[in-house]
Amino acid sequence: MEFSSKLIEKAVNEMSQLPGIGKRTALRLVLHLLKQPKEQTGFLSQALVAMRQDIKYCASCHNISDSVMCEICANKNRNHQIICIVEDIRDVMAIENTGQFRGIYHVLGGKISPIDGVGPSQLNITSLVEKVKSGTVTEIIFALSSTMEGDTTNFYIYKQITESNIIISTIARGISVGDELEYADEVTLGRSILHRIPFEKGFKNN
Amino acid sequence: MEFSSKLIEKAVNEMSQLPGIGKRTALRLVLHLLKQPKEQTGFLSQALVAMRQDIKYCASCHNISDSVMCEICANKNRNHQIICIVEDIRDVMAIENTGQFRGIYHVLGGKISPIDGVGPSQLNITSLVEKVKSGTVTEIIFALSSTMEGDTTNFYIYKQITESNIIISTIARGISVGDELEYADEVTLGRSILHRIPFEKGFKNN
Ligand SMILES: [Zn+2]
Ligand SMILES: [Zn+2]
Repeated sequence: MEFSSKLIEKAVNEMSQLPGIGKRTALRLVLHLLKQPKEQTGFLSQALVAMRQDIKYCASCHNISDSVMCEICANKNRNHQIICIVEDIRDVMAIENTGQFRGIYHVLGGKISPIDGVGPSQLNITSLVEKVKSGTVTEIIFALSSTMEGDTTNFYIYKQITESNIIISTIARGISVGDELEYADEVTLGRSILHRIPFEKGFKNN
Repeated sequence: MEFSSKLIEKAVNEMSQLPGIGKRTALRLVLHLLKQPKEQTGFLSQALVAMRQDIKYCASCHNISDSVMCEICANKNRNHQIICIVEDIRDVMAIENTGQFRGIYHVLGGKISPIDGVGPSQLNITSLVEKVKSGTVTEIIFALSSTMEGDTTNFYIYKQITESNIIISTIARGISVGDELEYADEVTLGRSILHRIPFEKGFKNN
């Protein structure tokens, strides 16, 4: 792509560093900003820089937070004995959205992935193991994505806490509520059958 | 969407002002920036602000340019008697990319669109009409998209320059080179037949 302006070229190049944003899309976004009042570009830039500079992580669960302790960890009405292990803030938001979980979280900050150069030491695993060993935890729920990286990470953590006398569970996988069986992928359908639950239990949760 | 951090919330809200970027995508982009070195967010913000603050438009064709006169208008080897009318810089880039056009451009900055509140006065039409009336132009090529807005704009300009003794043409529409006829939409295929050209001419241009 050849640009008639270095200013546009630079803006497009920086914008297209973002995942899923190609040069064409970046140009479209940049041209959109040009048509909007200058303030919009200013607000966007300020918000990004402020976020990147001043972001903090909860000292307990490592979720993104504006205070030392996030709202969930600071909430005494939540069950601090049940910890749900997730990859990042999006998983916390998704689970919170269901309204079904009243425990607390532990945000790993990623998954073990040798290909991407992510080892256990880059993740928030040590603090989790310490929490479990301190004896205040009764249940750990694994809620990582069911990929090879997710399974590897689950197993790595599992090995370090298996001696503890706690419940170690993983979120149920299965056919989405309302989905037709014929359109489900076979692995998911297989798990749905393998991990079937008593009829009354499924009924109760609806 | 509920966020555990106002900084994230603000960044996501600003990011999702961009066209085609929903809140989920915005969050993904923002989290990506968090994983990258701080400098990347700084460079992105600086590039956007610099672009928005310092952008200039060519005094002659209104294309985005870093100098008073864009490179195309300043190029004496180009034919300044033939003017191709386009909507924005992307069209200039696309046509330049073909290497088939050696005239100059006139960038309208949009199309007449009552629904979007864009009238003729907001577009660079007056300067075009003046150029034509000055008598230095021999041909005008309309290259706006063939939508109702494009056709309206073409016709609005056409009415003002039709008295001038110049050639007024429009880019050919038809089946893409290499496309199978059976997959073409019928309007395009119809135009391809209606605007058929002498066989040798089509052969020569390949
Ligand atoms: Zn926390
Ligand atoms: Zn120019």
